[in-house]
Amino acid sequence: MLRIINQVTEATTELQRISRRTHDQQVVGQEEAVREILSTVKNQGDQALLDYTEKFDKLTLTADKLRVNGSELDAAYQQVSKDLIDAIALAREQIEAFHQQRKPQSWVQFGDNETVLGKRYNAVDCAGLYVPGGRAAYPSTVLMNAVPAKVAGVERRVMMTPPMPDGKVNSAVLVAAQEAGIEEIYRVGGAHAIAALAYGTETIPQVDVITGPGNLYVTLAKKMVYGTVGIDSLAGPSEVLIIADHQANPTYVATDLLAQAEHDPMAAAILLTTDESLAQKVQKEVEQQLANHPRRTLTEKAIAHYGVIVVVNSLLEATELSNLFAPEHLELEVEDPWELLRLIRHAGAIFLGHATPEAVGDYLAGPNHTLPTSGAARYASALGVETFMKHSSLISYSHTGLEKVSKAIQTLAAAEGLHSHSESVRVRLSDDY
Amino acid sequence: MLRIINQVTEATTELQRISRRTHDQQVVGQEEAVREILSTVKNQGDQALLDYTEKFDKLTLTADKLRVNGSELDAAYQQVSKDLIDAIALAREQIEAFHQQRKPQSWVQFGDNETVLGKRYNAVDCAGLYVPGGRAAYPSTVLMNAVPAKVAGVERRVMMTPPMPDGKVNSAVLVAAQEAGIEEIYRVGGAHAIAALAYGTETIPQVDVITGPGNLYVTLAKKMVYGTVGIDSLAGPSEVLIIADHQANPTYVATDLLAQAEHDPMAAAILLTTDESLAQKVQKEVEQQLANHPRRTLTEKAIAHYGVIVVVNSLLEATELSNLFAPEHLELEVEDPWELLRLIRHAGAIFLGHATPEAVGDYLAGPNHTLPTSGAARYASALGVETFMKHSSLISYSHTGLEKVSKAIQTLAAAEGLHSHSESVRVRLSDDY
Repeated sequence: MLRIINQVTEATTELQRISRRTHDQQVVGQEEAVREILSTVKNQGDQALLDYTEKFDKLTLTADKLRVNGSELDAAYQQVSKDLIDAIALAREQIEAFHQQRKPQSWVQFGDNETVLGKRYNAVDCAGLYVPGGRAAYPSTVLMNAVPAKVAGVERRVMMTPPMPDGKVNSAVLVAAQEAGIEEIYRVGGAHAIAALAYGTETIPQVDVITGPGNLYVTLAKKMVYGTVGIDSLAGPSEVLIIADHQANPTYVATDLLAQAEHDPMAAAILLTTDESLAQKVQKEVEQQLANHPRRTLTEKAIAHYGVIVVVNSLLEATELSNLFAPEHLELEVEDPWELLRLIRHAGAIFLGHATPEAVGDYLAGPNHTLPTSGAARYASALGVETFMKHSSLISYSHTGLEKVSKAIQTLAAAEGLHSHSESVRVRLSDDY
Repeated sequence: MLRIINQVTEATTELQRISRRTHDQQVVGQEEAVREILSTVKNQGDQALLDYTEKFDKLTLTADKLRVNGSELDAAYQQVSKDLIDAIALAREQIEAFHQQRKPQSWVQFGDNETVLGKRYNAVDCAGLYVPGGRAAYPSTVLMNAVPAKVAGVERRVMMTPPMPDGKVNSAVLVAAQEAGIEEIYRVGGAHAIAALAYGTETIPQVDVITGPGNLYVTLAKKMVYGTVGIDSLAGPSEVLIIADHQANPTYVATDLLAQAEHDPMAAAILLTTDESLAQKVQKEVEQQLANHPRRTLTEKAIAHYGVIVVVNSLLEATELSNLFAPEHLELEVEDPWELLRLIRHAGAIFLGHATPEAVGDYLAGPNHTLPTSGAARYASALGVETFMKHSSLISYSHTGLEKVSKAIQTLAAAEGLHSHSESVRVRLSDDY
């Protein structure tokens, strides 16, 4: 049963509990295990990957079988429907169009005294994409990671994904990878896959950036290797917060809440509404849809633990609660969503209006579906082309330009006790050198 | 003595060793200590800060003395020279101008079928800046962190810096903070300062983003709290790589190498040159300048352990070595630096030409001096306004727009086994709801 809360103080506490549901997890044991895996892969390379695959995936492989070969890549197209190939192609096209248009560009500016400043953007050389297996082997995840890497211009793009018990990799995942321009795919999953990308092995290249979601072990591994390589973010369980007024359709709202809850027993589904009667109708509709839901057990768990309806006194109050929660996904199912948007400060992606279910953004509207979770929208943003690029500052001074600022530099250097900093200016302006 | 290497294979190995000088540090004990500090501050708040300040800074404080008060802020201006105030003001102005002009802006685009996509940029609510004490209490560090936070529009900007033995804070640091618009300053340093910013205490606000360099403990603390808050980067010891040809001035080159080495015994200073005779002259000049250097001991250590001159066969070879090293600072002291720039892929900041010592960028050219170290320029960039901002994706679909893509969404949702994702589209297009 999806609870209804009418009291703002109680709602605030409850939203904080939900937001922090992974923060206070005790993970000391898992950290220890991941640290061990990282160091073993670093030291033993491929052999460690084979050992862990045997241990965790119950699959015996040899090093030459780690990479998915050409005939498997071809065969994947035979194992999915024409409709799915078309859908993947449409999604790829729209995601690529959105990411392409705001690709960062290098620039320079010319200042006084022939000084030049600027930024040069470059793609990273090599990117590693992690795609989870099992329930979360999503072709959409592949597209949302691979397309920005391609648009960024990353030359070598590598994918890691765990094998199924028969050694195969999900066909839809293989098709999505190829549609997005990835053909170097390894059947390795878990923390050892992250270790391989961070340190390299005989078979797997060391990459510059690792992106993609994963389970707790994968996430801990990403955090530990951050600094050796770049990472996109630390993904937690998914969440939606819907703000709805009297105009909202209870069936739409209920379905959208369930579309979040069905991801994961830890997923969060929150409705803030000004309309008490909508709250009742949504509660009932959720119950009804759950009765025949193909993932009933896990979805019910999410709804029970991390689902809540809050009846608020005003839309202003709703936006305040929402800013506090900083949701990954925010739906504004209200009369004037663009008006309400002005009050929103923290959210990963915002879906405006009754005809914009989150699923549109999950799959193909264009913006990335890799978004900050667990309140990280306070400070973080969606994955993007810039995740796979970096910039170098450009600074070019003339003799005259240097002269104009020499006194200030020498004063600051003296205050900081950095003798040679000061000297590096002085020698250039002296006639003696 | 600054070694000269003539052999490329040897140089490659040596550059890798220098690049990885902090990667392979054993920090298990320090990690344990930092984990303990984080959990103590999280649980005990201000009291823990007072205890650690007593323990590490040998200073007894009370909670109401943690914050630097108004008369201390005023007094700082009396304790620094007029020249220094002017230099700080000039630097602030140039840094602000550079950061202001490329501040990210929100945008929307209007597509077919009344769909709208876009990005909304917001500043974080609260930023915490760390400024080291002792040898590294630099006013320039204050400016390089505080100015971008202000330009971003961060409402609450807080600074943490360790107290000196008499309880005071470096006057130049206090002046720089005020010039850059920070007046909320706490005399707390070390890993416990990072903990306070990440979790909040009775006195210190919980922030959204923590930036600024620090010692190993501060850096480990930043890595551990990443995910609870955002951080700028994991700063390592500073480094410069200079590419020079026969046109370069040996005195300039030698002084620039020492300007890096004088920071820290772990700092790296590398010269790649096509000119054997320049190599000899620079080696000699470094030796001479070191003889009377006010920080001779530590600078000599850096030069001995992490300094090297490599005589390369061509400028192309120099760029290849440089890209492998991915230096924090790269100086191109060659005949045509803009020509050579084309071959550079990885560097934090690039200084072009003989009249552009790194010190110009360290202090006041405008671009940020907080740059990726230890090879992180392969995937990371300078701190910037965007460090203190984040974006929300905006997605607004119309009924017709949704209809056009409904089949693709439902096909993808079915392939991913996500029933309610598919339903969220179906119910919106059905006449029944």
